[in-house]
Amino acid sequence: MYSAPTPSENSRPFLTWQRITDWAQEHYRYRSFAKEEKIPARPGLLYLVERGAVRLTSEAQVVNGTSNASLASRAQPDEDAFLGFVGSGQPFEIVAQAPFTLQAYAHIDQTSVIWLYWHDLDHWPHFRREVLDAFRYQHQRKLLWLSTLGQRRTIDRLLGFITLLIEEFGEPCDEGYYLPWSLTHAQIGSAIGSTRVTVTRLMGKLRQRGLIRSYADNFIALPSDNPILQGRQALG
Amino acid sequence: MYSAPTPSENSRPFLTWQRITDWAQEHYRYRSFAKEEKIPARPGLLYLVERGAVRLTSEAQVVNGTSNASLASRAQPDEDAFLGFVGSGQPFEIVAQAPFTLQAYAHIDQTSVIWLYWHDLDHWPHFRREVLDAFRYQHQRKLLWLSTLGQRRTIDRLLGFITLLIEEFGEPCDEGYYLPWSLTHAQIGSAIGSTRVTVTRLMGKLRQRGLIRSYADNFIALPSDNPILQGRQALG
Repeated sequence: MYSAPTPSENSRPFLTWQRITDWAQEHYRYRSFAKEEKIPARPGLLYLVERGAVRLTSEAQVVNGTSNASLASRAQPDEDAFLGFVGSGQPFEIVAQAPFTLQAYAHIDQTSVIWLYWHDLDHWPHFRREVLDAFRYQHQRKLLWLSTLGQRRTIDRLLGFITLLIEEFGEPCDEGYYLPWSLTHAQIGSAIGSTRVTVTRLMGKLRQRGLIRSYADNFIALPSDNPILQGRQALG
Repeated sequence: MYSAPTPSENSRPFLTWQRITDWAQEHYRYRSFAKEEKIPARPGLLYLVERGAVRLTSEAQVVNGTSNASLASRAQPDEDAFLGFVGSGQPFEIVAQAPFTLQAYAHIDQTSVIWLYWHDLDHWPHFRREVLDAFRYQHQRKLLWLSTLGQRRTIDRLLGFITLLIEEFGEPCDEGYYLPWSLTHAQIGSAIGSTRVTVTRLMGKLRQRGLIRSYADNFIALPSDNPILQGRQALG
């Protein structure tokens, strides 16, 4: 089933991307997923989101520090932590490190994913560099994410988290910018170390103060006077 | 002052690293720092830790969601968040994204740092790939870090955080493995979204339960029956 992709001298990203999509379809390395379908991804392989959006989560077999039981019996499943979105054109991979297991889900319908072995990229050196640069970018985003999670007040973490997501994935609307995908309050809580109940209460507070808005079908929007988004406009 | 480095065909990491160190010293791109000295790093450049350890932090001009004042006057400096260590042989870079500013500090004495423009690496393509792979690895570590920060109980986040640090940077000791650098309780709190006081209290609890230990001069150690470290031994 497997044969080497044709080497490409071409470094123009769009053509390379088209070539890789064609190759992936020919070699059964391409699959589409329905909303909330789990993507059977495993460590060591490289995945590319061709369209749609992937949600990365982490399941922890936590060592429950609040119990007195022995280490072994203390391991228990926790709620999945939301680790972020991977948008179309972006790569992702699965890290496995006990007690954490990363999972990937199609966050919206018609999410298509290509999978490759890393050595497949030997034939597309320019594309490998693009992939690695994309991980470098994702790393930078995670440093910003950690910056906001280090804040002591949950409301600051919540607003920082929403702002970073919209800054990265947001689309313009009358209200300012909105996140084009829905996130439950439980998912938000799992990202910022809080609970669904607290997130609901604090979202209400932020909304009251005009720091966040609602848009259309329950999407979260930020008014365009948000200082981070202003930074973005200046850059753009 | 600037001249192109000699192209190297050699992909053996050690030789390349030696060549880069030599080149950096020749071109005044090498500097040593004392403990707690701030490294004058800026966005867009690439930094390599040649020896010692660098501590990355983030300073946030937070939009304080708990105040009723206007957005502009609500901006106020928060405590620096601890974003992780960069050990010797590892690259780092500074991300600037208002309201967050990343900073780099020498975490221990005699920390030496090399700096480069990204285009300097055109002459060392193999080394560039190593650098990008290192960022890819750092990204994976941050996903694990986010996995533990998503846990609801502060004590779980604390234990997960300590465990990941020791799993990555730990050295063996009689007690199991220890983190060879000190971290204040305030720094730990700034990483897990908690306070110095809470960290001190929970560290006491974890110690009582034998989940963490002390080693030598106030270093944190994990007993070798920690499940994550057991995973590490199985891999090693």
